[in-house]
Amino acid sequence: MSLLTVGTVAFDAIETPYDKVDRVVGGSATYITLASSNFYKENQIVSVVGDDFPDEMIAEFHKRAIDTEGLQVIEGEKSFFWSGRYHENMISRDTLVTDLNVLANFDPVLPAAYRKAKYVMLGNIDPNLQMKVIDQLEERPDMIMLDTMNFWMDIAMDSVKSVLKHIDVLTINDEEARQLSGEHSLVKAAAAIFEMGPKYLIIKKGEHGALLFGENQIFSCPALPLAEVFDPTGAGDTFAGGIMGHIAASGDVSFENMRKAVLTGSVMASFCVEKFGPNRLLEITKADIDQRMDEFRRLMTV
Amino acid sequence: MSLLTVGTVAFDAIETPYDKVDRVVGGSATYITLASSNFYKENQIVSVVGDDFPDEMIAEFHKRAIDTEGLQVIEGEKSFFWSGRYHENMISRDTLVTDLNVLANFDPVLPAAYRKAKYVMLGNIDPNLQMKVIDQLEERPDMIMLDTMNFWMDIAMDSVKSVLKHIDVLTINDEEARQLSGEHSLVKAAAAIFEMGPKYLIIKKGEHGALLFGENQIFSCPALPLAEVFDPTGAGDTFAGGIMGHIAASGDVSFENMRKAVLTGSVMASFCVEKFGPNRLLEITKADIDQRMDEFRRLMTV
Repeated sequence: MSLLTVGTVAFDAIETPYDKVDRVVGGSATYITLASSNFYKENQIVSVVGDDFPDEMIAEFHKRAIDTEGLQVIEGEKSFFWSGRYHENMISRDTLVTDLNVLANFDPVLPAAYRKAKYVMLGNIDPNLQMKVIDQLEERPDMIMLDTMNFWMDIAMDSVKSVLKHIDVLTINDEEARQLSGEHSLVKAAAAIFEMGPKYLIIKKGEHGALLFGENQIFSCPALPLAEVFDPTGAGDTFAGGIMGHIAASGDVSFENMRKAVLTGSVMASFCVEKFGPNRLLEITKADIDQRMDEFRRLMTV
Repeated sequence: MSLLTVGTVAFDAIETPYDKVDRVVGGSATYITLASSNFYKENQIVSVVGDDFPDEMIAEFHKRAIDTEGLQVIEGEKSFFWSGRYHENMISRDTLVTDLNVLANFDPVLPAAYRKAKYVMLGNIDPNLQMKVIDQLEERPDMIMLDTMNFWMDIAMDSVKSVLKHIDVLTINDEEARQLSGEHSLVKAAAAIFEMGPKYLIIKKGEHGALLFGENQIFSCPALPLAEVFDPTGAGDTFAGGIMGHIAASGDVSFENMRKAVLTGSVMASFCVEKFGPNRLLEITKADIDQRMDEFRRLMTV
């Protein structure tokens, strides 16, 4: 019984029209596990960092019962570094720097204790590495969710399609769903993507919320309208972490429970954008989450 | 007790990437009253047509208990004609022809029986004409809703702002809300627009649904994901007609009831896009509407 997450653990430098931060811990696996740890306590992380990664953050993972046996620390090398600048709309952004560093030679190795994970979250990394993780699993998990992006579709579509055959849930944005399927209508895109392997599809639409497709049903989850979006970095990963945390905690992979999971992911993402990097996620309490969940329910009440 | 609608009654020629139609009845007042007549039976229409307007459509209005005493017919002149071509995304479009014809000299005159209307829907026309309608009312209606667009904000922002002082509900799209308020965040845009007069704001987001703001609450209404959008012409007017029809039928202008009204409007708009012009609206039954309403509720269930 565990939730295994593979993804990046990194440093980010982020600039928005309103403020900037030079160096904050980031990476998909960071956001995913921080979010999921609010709901589920057997998190395992597979990633790689350099010897510049702060002990304080490792301690924070441990405090949250996030196992780091699978987090490789490469002596004498630097952690993955990404720098980006958001446009006025706080959606589109320019990448300023991508220093792969330790990520260039990342070979995900699952410790023995990870190979029977019941839930697996494949964060947005090279689809060949996502496949390597699946290949090391000793039992078929109850749910494998995968996140990917247009970048991998552009340069490695065949690898993306190969790994899709082995997963249960795909989470991508609306433009990526159109690119992957060749269909403009998201209903048709979902039908085409189900032919590729996944049985559930979650389409992220940022400020417009998310759509969950599966079992001939659709759930439309709103986003919380916010007066300020401070920093959208990590929101999609936090969303995925909330979903997997809810699913792992409830042990129920039905479509009805996926509706609640997507709502939980949306709640978590709404916190993520309130401060730079994972800073807001590091301070919220159970009471904050419950209150935000109530706000979402009022938003949807008719 | 009546619902007074002012707007255009016209002919449209519409081209989409998939099909085209040379001449179909259109205009905001047409869509609004056709939608509202499914829920409320005391509809009054104020508009103008030429002598080319088909008797069959007038008969259709009467069959639906839409009073046309306020529909001026100008002998020897032609009805307003609009022609447009939709892009691949079925959202953006190019206007090919705008022949104002009778609309050029339209002076809305309210028959005596219309001047005590309890509900008023000001469709998207010149804000000075919208104001002229308000000026002829003998009693303050329970609800005045107004639709407008970026075109009027570009050329007559002062007139738009003048009429906003006299209304209860404004319905515009997200870009128009940003233009009107000067705020990018829709939460901040709503606060700014409430300062201008309206107490409720409905932001139309097309395939992403609609947001209702008011009384420090927000309702996020989904759009039905569709495999095909055949023709989006009139969807916004149909949405408004469903809202006003629901409000007039229930006689309840509370925020809680506005939630249901916006859902009703969304249901009606989801039909509108299924065929060219108002063709789908002309054939749906109460059973179709009830079934679609159930589909929307499943879409929102968590």
